[in-house]
Amino acid sequence: VSARDPDLLLYLVTDADACGDRGVEETVRAAVAGGVTTVQLRDHRATTRELYCSAVRLRELLSGSAVTLVVDDRLDVALAAGVDGVHLGQSDLPVERARAVAGPEMVIGLSVANREEAERAASLPSGTIDYLGVGPVFPTTTKADAGPTIGLGELGTICAMTSLPCVAIGGIGEAQARAVIGAGAAGVAVVAAICAAGDPEEAAQQLRRRVGR
Amino acid sequence: VSARDPDLLLYLVTDADACGDRGVEETVRAAVAGGVTTVQLRDHRATTRELYCSAVRLRELLSGSAVTLVVDDRLDVALAAGVDGVHLGQSDLPVERARAVAGPEMVIGLSVANREEAERAASLPSGTIDYLGVGPVFPTTTKADAGPTIGLGELGTICAMTSLPCVAIGGIGEAQARAVIGAGAAGVAVVAAICAAGDPEEAAQQLRRRVGR
Repeated sequence: VSARDPDLLLYLVTDADACGDRGVEETVRAAVAGGVTTVQLRDHRATTRELYCSAVRLRELLSGSAVTLVVDDRLDVALAAGVDGVHLGQSDLPVERARAVAGPEMVIGLSVANREEAERAASLPSGTIDYLGVGPVFPTTTKADAGPTIGLGELGTICAMTSLPCVAIGGIGEAQARAVIGAGAAGVAVVAAICAAGDPEEAAQQLRRRVGR
Repeated sequence: VSARDPDLLLYLVTDADACGDRGVEETVRAAVAGGVTTVQLRDHRATTRELYCSAVRLRELLSGSAVTLVVDDRLDVALAAGVDGVHLGQSDLPVERARAVAGPEMVIGLSVANREEAERAASLPSGTIDYLGVGPVFPTTTKADAGPTIGLGELGTICAMTSLPCVAIGGIGEAQARAVIGAGAAGVAVVAAICAAGDPEEAAQQLRRRVGR
């Protein structure tokens, strides 16, 4: 896969608290062994240097694999660490400016939480962003500032509004994964379902079975 | 002045709390009218989007002036907003990586708090960074994670260790400014002395008189 065509099927968002004593790196190693296809490094409490060092370690861990690695919010950390891309929220850099800084090779993902944000994303110049993160679909405990849940129906509506691949996020576990793909998502993004699992490799394997391939 | 040769003589670090109802933009406008030569936008509580918007507004405010504008920590915001540079702390991106991402045109400053950090900075490849921020020289209330104060003697020692221009920071007001320049600093950096002043333009003028030129 090219860097600009990430496989979103099973997308892990890291959470240092949920990973606990096992740590983010070991959780990612196990999750990738279990079938995770994209990893987003997210840590709003780390210093910039700590986040940079984590990004470098994950890049080294994933080198030679087909797994795409993006950093949440911090385009500068993504560029300095040489990872594949950045994931931006609505309160992060404007995506057009981020693309101008990132250059044409980097993956840029954008979170949308409703039809208005999805419409604006769909009307961006082609090539500005590579995928959408859509949600929260179900209630979540791992993102304090998550907005209202949208449910499977609205997820389907938003996925149908854009030709960009959509990864669904928010409260998705084994029980919800198949229905999320059925609603039109290209993949499922999980935090707790893998980070907080007793066996993250096994958890990733079970999720992969549910989403197919 | 070229972008890579900032005039550090009177260097304002913004603090939204200290600026209060007057706001950061109006404080900067007044401070520049009073003689500030470099502005560092620092706001760790703002979202990335808010910081970006502040940086764009300050860039517009300062366009056509000789004042250099840098953003604290966030190289991505600095690049996206098109400002002159970035100021990095010891917990931010490694300066060599920041230079690689920033390209040759951007100003990069680095904070050092002791001789060891100053030595490492002095041994960087030429052109990696453009100036040092040295301190805290005196006790400060505007930076919660500031380290131990170094005083004028150590400031002088550190300034003499490097050919990079040094801007002194930490608890500097009108009463200390002249002695700081006398110790070997190329300029004084202030937060509260201007942001919290009743009349920031007048405060900047008084400081300018103390530091000469």
